Amino acid sequence: MSDRQPGATNSLTDVAGIRVGHADRRVGGWLSGTTVILAPDSGAVAGVDVRGGGPGTRETDLLDPRNQVERVHAIVFSGGSAFGLAAADGVMQRLFKAGVGYPTGGPGEVVPIVPGAVIFDLGRGGDFTKRPGAGMGQEAYDAAFSSPDGPALIGVVGAGTGAIAGGLKGAVGSASVLLADGATVAALVVVNSFGSCIDPLTGELYAARFGLLGEFTQLLPPKADEVVAARADAEVKIFPGGQGRLGAALATTIAVVATDATLTKAQCAKVSGIAHDGMARAIRPVHTMFDGDTVFTLATGDRGAPDMLAFHALLEAAGDCLTRAIGRAMLAAESVQTPAGLLRSYRDAFPSAFPATP
Amino acid sequence: MSDRQPGATNSLTDVAGIRVGHADRRVGGWLSGTTVILAPDSGAVAGVDVRGGGPGTRETDLLDPRNQVERVHAIVFSGGSAFGLAAADGVMQRLFKAGVGYPTGGPGEVVPIVPGAVIFDLGRGGDFTKRPGAGMGQEAYDAAFSSPDGPALIGVVGAGTGAIAGGLKGAVGSASVLLADGATVAALVVVNSFGSCIDPLTGELYAARFGLLGEFTQLLPPKADEVVAARADAEVKIFPGGQGRLGAALATTIAVVATDATLTKAQCAKVSGIAHDGMARAIRPVHTMFDGDTVFTLATGDRGAPDMLAFHALLEAAGDCLTRAIGRAMLAAESVQTPAGLLRSYRDAFPSAFPATP
Repeated sequence: MSDRQPGATNSLTDVAGIRVGHADRRVGGWLSGTTVILAPDSGAVAGVDVRGGGPGTRETDLLDPRNQVERVHAIVFSGGSAFGLAAADGVMQRLFKAGVGYPTGGPGEVVPIVPGAVIFDLGRGGDFTKRPGAGMGQEAYDAAFSSPDGPALIGVVGAGTGAIAGGLKGAVGSASVLLADGATVAALVVVNSFGSCIDPLTGELYAARFGLLGEFTQLLPPKADEVVAARADAEVKIFPGGQGRLGAALATTIAVVATDATLTKAQCAKVSGIAHDGMARAIRPVHTMFDGDTVFTLATGDRGAPDMLAFHALLEAAGDCLTRAIGRAMLAAESVQTPAGLLRSYRDAFPSAFPATP
Repeated sequence: MSDRQPGATNSLTDVAGIRVGHADRRVGGWLSGTTVILAPDSGAVAGVDVRGGGPGTRETDLLDPRNQVERVHAIVFSGGSAFGLAAADGVMQRLFKAGVGYPTGGPGEVVPIVPGAVIFDLGRGGDFTKRPGAGMGQEAYDAAFSSPDGPALIGVVGAGTGAIAGGLKGAVGSASVLLADGATVAALVVVNSFGSCIDPLTGELYAARFGLLGEFTQLLPPKADEVVAARADAEVKIFPGGQGRLGAALATTIAVVATDATLTKAQCAKVSGIAHDGMARAIRPVHTMFDGDTVFTLATGDRGAPDMLAFHALLEAAGDCLTRAIGRAMLAAESVQTPAGLLRSYRDAFPSAFPATP
């Protein structure tokens, strides 16, 4: 717990100039989607750290601090495993049409820089072939403009539509915090982890103890019978019949951290690295060979560059924001009925954790 | 020069089970294309080394030797800068339809693993918007099956269609060599370098001194007037009007090395690294901030694992194969007329290097 305060929406869009759009399908064999995080038109300085053992990514090599391109124009997260990388093509098309990209010559001759990462959710809606492509990337891009000043939507949306987290329903989460120097740090995450977000002995969210004042303090310790039932259910969900019809044995948690501070590419990579520690506090185990866990960081540079102590505070906040975003994802998730069975949300698995409505 | 012998076709397809397909367009504003390198259906163990300062890549993170996926099913090279990454989506679709990919569950539930890299050639055919997409990836895949036992086509084809190398016309090249232990090593390259493949003082190909017996020995030292003219022309091509209408200031040389030996992922990464040295011998400067130079290595594993000395020989051969492939690309290139001017081939810039046909 901390005396820090979240931003106005406690979400990624608290960083000025960052937009978030989701597109997804839940019927006709589908249970998947795409989430786009748009930088301001001039781009954001970016970095990445890939720590999962089974990543699916694109355009991460250019983020090496040694390399030329400094700014990216969007980050695309998608379901569909490697097939979902196609969603970024649709986002590139939209950005190109808008004239947004790395300038290469004459007017309009731009190349949008769109790194991305995918989660495994194939077949969870019943049809292995229903997965995001370029069209869904375009839809997500368009959605990012539909509510210009609103919070980033969280829950079972976008790239989190087919997510599972340790046998419970996974989702998109987000959180933000205001730093003492006035900078904002925020995170958005798609929680689709092999490991669990809850303590198997108590049913409590690991993330809950790292919340800001009032963020998770209303949660009660779940009743023992719910804890036992959830543990049994998670085991079935993870290795059903040894083959994983829900594909829960293949996973990946992906996140973006954003800030309005001015950072170098190398600093953005460092922020991504320490954000993985925040992931480790909220998910156990994490970064396994079944997870492609990847964190991008975007720095819009609206504010100045932090000095050493301010950068330290920013790093600490980045880790905590990602932890909190994961906790908020689990609380925002709703249960989803799939052809292979019910994917229960934290709320439905642990009703005793929530105080009765007065 | 060496007493070693090339394989039957002196190209990448001398490695059993490797197929190469090209697709490209040269009219209607186009000057670009895609090249696919297909592994056997069971995949090939793979590694990568990215040493250029401006890479455009996908699915390279999974090639980290620490990570889970061991085998890839294809490598896709494409023009179109980052837009061209979409070509890999088309190759994934074809591979999925063929049932080829990483198994994730039930029958047919596979995820094709298709790393790729792109070169900058945007606008070289006159229209910045004419660039490869998923459809061209599918065409290249289909072409890989049209001539099952033939050599990999080289010259102005596939991803080399819009290539420029230090102001001369770039192209696709390939070369192979048989090692003493019976293993085959081969390389295929798309030469689209900021730097030059020729000695500016003599007009000679840097690669020429590294050829196998008879490979480049027929070349004569070019006449002085041709050397002077080529140097002037290259300067115009690289920075015409300070803006690069031919886009030659943005570059990238991409290559794949293949072998039938059994290698680990880490060994494949090492092979890719030493192959970059072969690139350095053939192109000067190389790996600049304007180049996204990337080398993949595929090991099919038809033969056994090399011992330390055999692996040393394989590494040495990988570097030399890539050098030779670059030399052969330059010799295979033909001049191409573009809306912005004539892109001269090495043959047309240095006719005196070639002995008169008897």
